[in-house]
Amino acid sequence: MSTIKPVWSPVMTPFLKDFSVDDRSFTEHCQWLLKNDVGLAIFGTNSEANSLPVKEKIRLMERLVDAGIAGDHIMPGTGTCNLEDSVELTKKAVQIKSAGVLMLPPFYYKGVSDDGLYAYFSEIVERVADSNLRIYLYHIPAVSHVPISLDLIKRLIKQYPENFLGIKDSGGDWSFTISLIKEFSEDGFNVFAGSERFLLDTLRAGGSGCISATANVNPSQIAKLAQDWSGCQADSRQSDLIRIRDIFESYPLIPGMKAVKANATLNHDWRRVRPPLVSLDSDSSNSLNENLNKVGFRI
Amino acid sequence: MSTIKPVWSPVMTPFLKDFSVDDRSFTEHCQWLLKNDVGLAIFGTNSEANSLPVKEKIRLMERLVDAGIAGDHIMPGTGTCNLEDSVELTKKAVQIKSAGVLMLPPFYYKGVSDDGLYAYFSEIVERVADSNLRIYLYHIPAVSHVPISLDLIKRLIKQYPENFLGIKDSGGDWSFTISLIKEFSEDGFNVFAGSERFLLDTLRAGGSGCISATANVNPSQIAKLAQDWSGCQADSRQSDLIRIRDIFESYPLIPGMKAVKANATLNHDWRRVRPPLVSLDSDSSNSLNENLNKVGFRI
Repeated sequence: MSTIKPVWSPVMTPFLKDFSVDDRSFTEHCQWLLKNDVGLAIFGTNSEANSLPVKEKIRLMERLVDAGIAGDHIMPGTGTCNLEDSVELTKKAVQIKSAGVLMLPPFYYKGVSDDGLYAYFSEIVERVADSNLRIYLYHIPAVSHVPISLDLIKRLIKQYPENFLGIKDSGGDWSFTISLIKEFSEDGFNVFAGSERFLLDTLRAGGSGCISATANVNPSQIAKLAQDWSGCQADSRQSDLIRIRDIFESYPLIPGMKAVKANATLNHDWRRVRPPLVSLDSDSSNSLNENLNKVGFRI
Repeated sequence: MSTIKPVWSPVMTPFLKDFSVDDRSFTEHCQWLLKNDVGLAIFGTNSEANSLPVKEKIRLMERLVDAGIAGDHIMPGTGTCNLEDSVELTKKAVQIKSAGVLMLPPFYYKGVSDDGLYAYFSEIVERVADSNLRIYLYHIPAVSHVPISLDLIKRLIKQYPENFLGIKDSGGDWSFTISLIKEFSEDGFNVFAGSERFLLDTLRAGGSGCISATANVNPSQIAKLAQDWSGCQADSRQSDLIRIRDIFESYPLIPGMKAVKANATLNHDWRRVRPPLVSLDSDSSNSLNENLNKVGFRI
């Protein structure tokens, strides 16, 4: 097994009034996440990354480097719908010595074949052409509508064993996660659950951890379970994590997490999301924060 | 009613071996389509537009201008997942005096609200800030998984009557097309069917025409029906169009049309698609061409 961090956060992206990225809040949030022992999976679904153009993501990678954050703490999402953009982002991620890239399949066309996806991913490997390229596939069928199959992974690992190192499984279907672990984990392929809901089960089964939205708001408790998963408190820690996760999932997830972050930092710009997402209204925001207070949760 | 052309082709994009665009074949195909009386809806789904980066689309718009093609024959697809890219493409389309732009909703997040889509589209109008901006919405739920609702259209037309001028309905659900026509056509909003299968019904009901994939390969016959839809041959023309369309739809549509174009032009580069799509294999290509021969069809 590689020694990649067990818990990663798809880092939320703060926006100013004109929807430009608030660099300072972004960097501060990243530094806070690192202090709380989770890695920076910038440009994930929960980062609203597909609502940002390529050049903005390139710029943000540079900002993190400028802020002195080492590449091995960073796993940028670099999968887009086209080869050129995906290659450009991936090359930049390799250049900053990132821990790896989290790669969506091209997600415009639906019902595409494994042959087509294989051709796409292998073209990216060939174009990036760097032995330091480490790809983590991103399976999130409810959003991308382009699932990653076991057969596709098998073919990619066989052809490019040094480049395809893992997967984030955001399918929410434990039977698929366990088949990924059984099939591939022994050979060092890292299987990350897409939610801390499955963290303990994933680690016990031989998976690597989780890359989870709510690691943006509950990082240290999630990281603690990952560090102590074989300890006697593990089941109780897992139950606590699920209780918090359940509360967040009762509201639209990205706007909800941002509302909680805004409340905790007293920076109300954090409430802002990019369209087509919509910020939480005040009532929902208050009720979410109250529900979290009731169980003693605070950022 | 505006006097926009009734038939548009989402122009297929020819690729060289390295997947770069074959400019000469692209321009030739555009000129051939114009000669056959259909407009150039470049950068549609069937153009593999989402498999191309923004700068390539900007470059291709410039190539068409260089080739002396007037803007009013061109309707570029400019909808992406993010504001900046959509605005950049749309500004360029306005700059070349295009007939309008065909705009996908942002298609990464699913289950987004009309409020979110409204905010997205209105932000684009505000940023482009040009009275010559003419947007045709693109409803293609089976691919985008982000439908365009009647309510959303109502709100956009009400706020921006000069900017939202029509829709391409690729939903394949005639009951939705007819409700679009009943609701909006009288006020000059142009409803285009997404397939010539519905062309005659659309025109009879008060719609504007069709923007259809197979206008790439069967342009003149489709254009003839649009010009002569009130004539006595209309039903027979419509049946002929459906017969040809049925044959194309028995194969993967984009690779199939490209295989037929390759066969007709003797330029086998036309067979190439960008991953994640896959070219038609030789057997399927032969059988498609034979089935078209049997009914006397030729490009």
